[in-house]
This record gives sequence, C-alpha cells and structure tokens, in this order.
Amino acid sequence: MSKIRIGIVGYGNLGQGAELSIMQNDDMELCAIFTRRNVKSVKPVDNNVPVVHLDDVLDWKGKIDVMLLCGGSATDLPKQSPQLARDFNIVDSYDTHAKIPQHYEAVNLAAKEGGTVGIISAGWDPGLFSLMRLYGEAVLPRGETYTFWGSGVSQGHSDVIRRIDGVKGAVQYTIPIESAMERARAGDGRDLTTRDKHLRDCYVVVEDGVDEELIRETIVNIPNYYADYDTKVTFISEEELAINHSEMPHGGFVIRSGETGLKGNRHIMEYSLKIDSNPELTSSVLVCYARAAYRLSKKGKTGATTCLDIAPSLLSPRTREDLRRDLL
Amino acid sequence: MSKIRIGIVGYGNLGQGAELSIMQNDDMELCAIFTRRNVKSVKPVDNNVPVVHLDDVLDWKGKIDVMLLCGGSATDLPKQSPQLARDFNIVDSYDTHAKIPQHYEAVNLAAKEGGTVGIISAGWDPGLFSLMRLYGEAVLPRGETYTFWGSGVSQGHSDVIRRIDGVKGAVQYTIPIESAMERARAGDGRDLTTRDKHLRDCYVVVEDGVDEELIRETIVNIPNYYADYDTKVTFISEEELAINHSEMPHGGFVIRSGETGLKGNRHIMEYSLKIDSNPELTSSVLVCYARAAYRLSKKGKTGATTCLDIAPSLLSPRTREDLRRDLL
Repeated sequence: MSKIRIGIVGYGNLGQGAELSIMQNDDMELCAIFTRRNVKSVKPVDNNVPVVHLDDVLDWKGKIDVMLLCGGSATDLPKQSPQLARDFNIVDSYDTHAKIPQHYEAVNLAAKEGGTVGIISAGWDPGLFSLMRLYGEAVLPRGETYTFWGSGVSQGHSDVIRRIDGVKGAVQYTIPIESAMERARAGDGRDLTTRDKHLRDCYVVVEDGVDEELIRETIVNIPNYYADYDTKVTFISEEELAINHSEMPHGGFVIRSGETGLKGNRHIMEYSLKIDSNPELTSSVLVCYARAAYRLSKKGKTGATTCLDIAPSLLSPRTREDLRRDLL
Repeated sequence: MSKIRIGIVGYGNLGQGAELSIMQNDDMELCAIFTRRNVKSVKPVDNNVPVVHLDDVLDWKGKIDVMLLCGGSATDLPKQSPQLARDFNIVDSYDTHAKIPQHYEAVNLAAKEGGTVGIISAGWDPGLFSLMRLYGEAVLPRGETYTFWGSGVSQGHSDVIRRIDGVKGAVQYTIPIESAMERARAGDGRDLTTRDKHLRDCYVVVEDGVDEELIRETIVNIPNYYADYDTKVTFISEEELAINHSEMPHGGFVIRSGETGLKGNRHIMEYSLKIDSNPELTSSVLVCYARAAYRLSKKGKTGATTCLDIAPSLLSPRTREDLRRDLL
C-alpha cells in the first residue's frame, strides 16, 4: 500500500514535532520540508529528507498529498494557508479563536478553487478541546462548559514580558485555580471571573541594575495579559531560566456540568490533557488530521473543514471494521 | 422550522430518560411511546404522549423520523433493532461489546433494505468512551489506552447476586482503584490485572436464617463476575438497601498515555464521566445521535453506522458556522 506523502511547511518547534510524529505513523512518509530560511540552515532529524525553499513549493505539486502548515497564527498562517490551499491539501493549527471564521472563509475559497481540502485549527485548543466542548453541550444541553488552561507555558504571555525594557528573559506559566474548577464541576461557575479561574506565574531575568519592583509593577498592570489576573513574579538568574524553564509543558481541562431529568441529576464530563511538549502534542494532532484530509480529498471533497465536521474514524489508520470491533 | 419527530420503543428507566432528554431539546418532539406491555400500564411523564402497542408500530411509518430503542442488549435489541430498522431510522445503545460486529451486520442489512439509517451502540460505553479511545490512539499512536469504570452500579453484577438462593436484594458498585489509574497515567500499566484495576463492593439483603458466610463465599467465587476481583460484601437490611442504594450513579475514565519525540515526552489524555443517573445520561446520548440519524437520512445515507463514523457537528442543533465561531 502506498504511503500518504506529507510535506512540512516551516521548521520551528512545531515543524520538528510534525517530523517526529510522522515517524510514529507507518502509513505516512515525509517527502520534503519547506522553509523561507536558507535551506542549508535547516537540519531535519532525518537528514535524508530534502529541505526546499518555499519559493519552489509549486515544483512539488502532485508529489505531496498533504501539506502540514507549521507556522504561527499571527502572521504566517493567514497568508500561507489560503495560498498553499490553492495547490495542496493542507492542515494547519490556526489558533486565533476570534479570527477563525475569517480564516475559514479565506481557506475555503482557495480550497474550493483549487479542488483541495483545507483543515484548519487542528491542535488541542482549538482542536481536541473544541471537540469536547461540542460533545459536552450536545449530550447535556442544559449545562455549562468551562475551559481551563495549564499548568503550562503561554508563549504570548511570556513574549509580552520579554518586550519590557530591562528584561532579558521570561517564562510565564498559566495555572488553573482548583477552587474554580470545583465550582465548574458543581455547575456553579457562572459568576467566576477571569481572576478566579487562572493564576499567572512569571519567572523573569532582568538586566543588571534594573529596579525589580518597577518591572513587577509594569508586568502586573499590562492590560488583557495580566491586569485582570493575580500575577506572581519571581526574579531569577539567566542560568536558572535556562535550566529550569526551557521545557514547553502545557495542558488544560474542558469541563461540562449539566443536569437531566426532573430530580436535578447532575453529570460531569471532564477532559484533561497533561502535555510534556506543547509543540509535539499539537503536531501529533496535525498529523492525524492529515490522514483525514487525504481521505476526504480522495472522496472528492473540497473546501475548508474542521475537526467538528470530521468523522473520528477518518483519523485512524485502522479500518472502520477494526475500530468497531476493538474500540467501540 | 418543523421538529424532528421521535418515537421511543420500550419505557423502562432508559425510555423514561429519553422522554426527559427530548424535553431538553427544542428541535425535537416526542410523538409516541411503543411498548410490549399493556398500554394502560405505561405512564409517560407527559401524559399527552400517546402510548401504542408495539404490534401497531407500522401504523406510524412515515410519521416518526427516528425511533429510539430503549430495550436491553441481552434479548430486546438483537431482535428489535434489525426489525425496526426496516421501516424507521433507529438509534440504539447496544452494549454487548463482543457482539457488536454481528449486531452491526444485522442492522446494516435491514437498514440498507429499508433505506433507513441505523445508529448502534450510542451510549457512554460503548459511545462516548469509544470516541475517546479512538481520539487517544489516533493522536498518540505510541501509547496505551485504559478504561476504568465506576464508581457506579453495575446491573449485571447486581443481578447475578440477586439470583442466589436466600438473597432478597443486592446492589453492586464497581470501584476503580486509584493506584492502578496512576500507573495507567504514567504509561506503566501493561501488567495490571483485572484484580488490580477494579474493586467490587456489594450490599446484600438475605432472608431470615440464611448463613451470611455461605452467601459471601458463594458471591466471591462466581466466575467472571467476582472470582477475579477483590470483592467486598456487606450485609444490610431491606430498608437500608431501599434508602441508600436505590440510585443509579455510574461513571468512569478513559486514559490514553503516550510518548512523542526523541526525548520520551509523555502526554496524558484523560476523559471522565461522573453520572448521577446512568439511564438519564445514556438516553441523553441516544437523543443527540437521533439528530445525527435524522440528518444523515435526509442526506440520503442508508445502513448502519456508529459514533466513530459520525461527524461531531451532526449532534448539535446549532449550525456549523455557529459551532466554528463559538466552540472551535
């Protein structure tokens, strides 16, 4: 049986995670990595994989079944996803929640014109967590859904500290607050505030002679990112940052608490992820949705789609018969 | 907009749960309840709902969009599901795992001939838990999946005690063992035995003068049901059984623990249900899959299918656009 031919676009943490994930899936092969950088500077884990400049991507049309887009949501994906969807089936992990509808429209237009399939927002949130929010409210229509994130590193919240004058390095951990999670489970969380749900725990390295109190004040008052939260700031050395805070763990919880019947019977559906490496888990989701993109395309489907509209069995290399027998 | 017209077949705990769940879903209406009992003996929660003898079910052909089959898996569903699938779209919660493939074939044949859709095994296990097992192994192919059940009442395990001579009543709780769950999460559960994973906690009422020790010995040695487990037996009064053990709570956990990358990064996906009323939660799943059956039938699909092959968005009353915007 021929393998699904995969291309990776962008080789940062996510792209490398995708390469490693493809190695775990016997029905796929990585055909090429595409980059905007100097191709010599990109070192795949498997050095037999060709590294190609993104300008030459169209040479690969017809030779790649699905492109995994591993760039960032801020600037890369809004351009690359529609652009590449004209010529390739694509999967991305676009995660700017508020702009998903317009990203969907742009990819849908391109993929309809190109006769391709474009799966967007395939990660864990959006992605696996979105699925859990949907199953939760479909099964328990009278209830409430809560999403908690962490404990884990938020790149956005770390970056905003790093941009402060006098800061040399910073890592921010988002920490869900257990008492709020208990109220969510009990179906008594409607008045939980932003501050009640998550704590922000920051580890910061400053330049010599910088007033730490001033930096602390600056951080805790940054609107949107910190002002609405209880924020803990710990100043550490550059070495400590490198040794203790270089991993990218993350995770979170989706809790649906709902009632049925006449006697107020309560049911709690809870999904949690504990993630050692955020990019490796995210890329593992991308990779199994690549299988779905390939199959949908083979069936003649075109346009944009998301995990919410994709049958779960399309993600698995196993036959539907096997899945029914072994997993149902 | 016209509502989805639902029929319920069988009005025990599950059938009543289905009636209550339909009331929570504004896009559905319950048109009739079908029973093999004397129709006068069946009292729906809403006394405007007609109760019809199952012998007359064909009078309702064309007047019901989806039949919810609320009988038992041992004897009712193997007959009723294929029989009714010839004339109606159906959803059942068939839960004899080992016989799912043959049940699927029987319903598929009938539904193909009848031009209907038959969704089988739509509950929480099989059902929601099956989905989690599938998502887990698709995202993390290098890993292990564990299912734990409880704490909750197992009807089968309670029944087998009730059939012992000298026993007047019994309720058995299946209890997952926390230390085994911890090993599952750590990806170190391959050698967990049946005994390691669940405890069986039994509350038993015996007739006057019966030797309790003899009953205890009998219970703990019943093959398959008890012999392979640590089993706790507590003898209580009839009143205590009625007061403290008449609810039907249940629940459980699906844990996928897997590794990615070269450095042994571990990820844990964990789904849990805490269920106050097992029949009400199961019927809530049936009801949202009725919506999927209706939509699939409208699209011209025929034959048997399961939750594994059904796109999540088909379960929700909301439009795909709304779901993308609000839940993705």
